[in-house]
Order: sequence, then C-alpha cells, then structure tokens
Amino acid sequence: MFQAQQLLEVQTPGRGLHEITKQVAAFVHEAGVRSGQVTIFCKHTSASLLIQENADPSAGHDLLAWLERLAPDGDPHYTHTAEGSDDMPAHLRSAVTRTSEVIPIVDGALGLGTWQGVFLAEHRTHAHRRVLILHVVGSL
Amino acid sequence: MFQAQQLLEVQTPGRGLHEITKQVAAFVHEAGVRSGQVTIFCKHTSASLLIQENADPSAGHDLLAWLERLAPDGDPHYTHTAEGSDDMPAHLRSAVTRTSEVIPIVDGALGLGTWQGVFLAEHRTHAHRRVLILHVVGSL
Amino acid sequence: MFQAQQLLEVQTPGRGLHEITKQVAAFVHEAGVRSGQVTIFCKHTSASLLIQENADPSAGHDLLAWLERLAPDGDPHYTHTAEGSDDMPAHLRSAVTRTSEVIPIVDGALGLGTWQGVFLAEHRTHAHRRVLILHVVGSL
Repeated sequence: MFQAQQLLEVQTPGRGLHEITKQVAAFVHEAGVRSGQVTIFCKHTSASLLIQENADPSAGHDLLAWLERLAPDGDPHYTHTAEGSDDMPAHLRSAVTRTSEVIPIVDGALGLGTWQGVFLAEHRTHAHRRVLILHVVGSL
Repeated sequence: MFQAQQLLEVQTPGRGLHEITKQVAAFVHEAGVRSGQVTIFCKHTSASLLIQENADPSAGHDLLAWLERLAPDGDPHYTHTAEGSDDMPAHLRSAVTRTSEVIPIVDGALGLGTWQGVFLAEHRTHAHRRVLILHVVGSL
Repeated sequence: MFQAQQLLEVQTPGRGLHEITKQVAAFVHEAGVRSGQVTIFCKHTSASLLIQENADPSAGHDLLAWLERLAPDGDPHYTHTAEGSDDMPAHLRSAVTRTSEVIPIVDGALGLGTWQGVFLAEHRTHAHRRVLILHVVGSL
C-alpha cells in the first residue's frame, strides 16, 4: 500500500462552482495509484465540495440559485454578521454540502460516473484563494 | 494492509430509499477484512447515499417528503429542465445528501449504530439502474 | 501502512454543537501517524458531524437556528412522531449534515484550516450519550 499527499490551490473569482476534476485526476495519475481511493478535503468553512453534473452549466446555475434561496444573503435572522452579509450564508451552504469527499480509483482513473465532475463551490461574493488537500491511498 | 473493490448495481423502481446495508456487509465479509473501513461511492448526480434509521419506514417516508418540499419538482425557478421536471430537484436533493460515505469496520462487521442502515436514495421518478463502488481497506 | 481505531463517547447536554477537535487530534497524536487520514463516524441518526468555524460562537448559533427553520420541530407534515416532536427533525438535520468525515493528516497534525473545528451536532432536545468511531490509516 502506497500513499501520497498534495495541496491544491484554487483562486476563485467569487461565488460559483469551479471544476477541479482534472487537477484531482492529474494528482492520482502522477502518484501512479492503480487501485485505491483519493480523499479531497476543503480547508474552509465558507467554501465546500460537490460532485455534480458537469455536462450542462444550467444545472450548476440552478444549484447555486437554490442554495441562495435556502440560505439567503443578509437574512435578518443572522447574528454572525461582522464579516459581511455573504459570510453566514456561506457557512450554511457549506454545512449542507461537503467538506470531504472520497472517490475510489479504478484501473488508475477516478471512479466517477459519466456525468460527474468534482467542484469547489465558492460561497463568498468576492475572489478567494482556497486550499484543498488531496490524499491518495492504494496500490501501484 | 489489504484492499478490495466491487461494483454494486441497484435496480431502483423509482423515487424512494433502497436499503443496501446487507450488500455492503456481504462485500466486507467476503473480503475478510476484520479491521479497516469501507467506502461507498454513488456514480450518479440524481441519486445519492444516506445513513438513516432503518427500523421504522415512516422516518424514510418523512425524509423523502421533506426533500420534496425543500427542492420541489417542477419549481419555475429551474432553468435546467430538458430532462424533465424531476431532474433538477434530483440534483439538488443529491447535493445535500451524500455521494461518498465511509464506514469503519469493527471486528469484521460494519461499525453502524443499532438503528442505522445504509440507503441509496433514488431521486428520479422512474426506475433506474444505479451503480455504486464499494472499496474496502484494512487488515485481515 | 498502519491503522488504529478507537471509540469516542460524547455526553451531550442536549441540542447544540459540541466541539471534538481536541479529542480527534489526541487520538491521531497517540496513534503516532505522521501522514495519513482519520475518519470520524457518527453511530446515530439524530446527531451528526460538521466541520465549521470554531472562532466565533455566533456562527454555530446561527447554524443551529437555520437548521431549526429548515426542518422545524413538530411540523404537522411529519408522520414519524412516536419518539417526540424533536425526533423527526433530528433525522432531517442529520441527513443534510454528515455521518462520516475524513480529514488528512499532515506532518502529524489534523489538516484543518485555521478556522475549522470538528463538531458533533446534537439534534435532540435532551441530553444523550453519543458514540463515534475514530479510525486512522497512515504511516508512522
């Protein structure tokens, strides 16, 4: 059994879904793992992970718009407001999506379905530098 | 350290929770792992995983009904409508439940609590063939 | 590759977020793993895991209040009511947060971001004894 770890930095332009499938696949390919699993971990509480459809951008658009309705910006219920009206809803949208995700590796490739892509969801309005940890365990 | 991997196919009759605890436990038993962990990965974006109460079916009924209220079928907000009025809400309900789940193995058995069962949640109205990946890592 | 496993018992005083970061970090430290990953698994369906901001308690307060609005206590839609008006919403709030979470270990420490803490979310009104499984895999 072999393992490898790498930081993945993503510069987000602000709120949106940012696909990172290629970066995760490249990390697994370079590690040379043929069978195993890769963990993706998001080191933030106002950005999160999602595995979602990557064929039609309208799905991502509707997903973000729905999260905005579910946890609205500037909701008067919020008491945690010191960091801006987009901060608390960013925590809420992160809480119901994913901080860690584990993907099996099959024959040296990510075991994703045909329409699945891995996304970093930036929930803050403004651009941020986000850091993820990629960790692979398996056999070469 | 030992690892094994298997595809699990589930034929769903349409929207509902489909318990897969026995199939996951059988995979771990056949692999012979005594201590370790098993990852379950759902290769779809309109079906997802949940570990929920498996004693009383009314809990699952209420869970599905709540997800339907949270992300209604045919909501006029949706723009991703080409695949039917039940497609976009299926993505949304998947986004807030799980694509991957990791369960520790204790003394050769799944480390589930007394009332926990592993479920594949089918979010589409019609029957679908769903594929999951099971991956176990541990010691024999 | 090395692995170790331990049960973590948490006595909750009732609904609220209970930080367990120190207990998870202590487990990893005692196991002596320098590079690897730790899985946290919650053996309950009315309590769950969350990695959230641990600097300002107002964020946790707002998160719990939002989950209460999302899945209200005593909603007349619920049919699963035998265990009390706070039971079904506890299942729902667990369903949209986490049962398992995986954190990479970097240089012998949890790879958490600066503001991240690991929390057990107790969703029932009254005090409960909760049991988590910690499982670490990695190199010494």
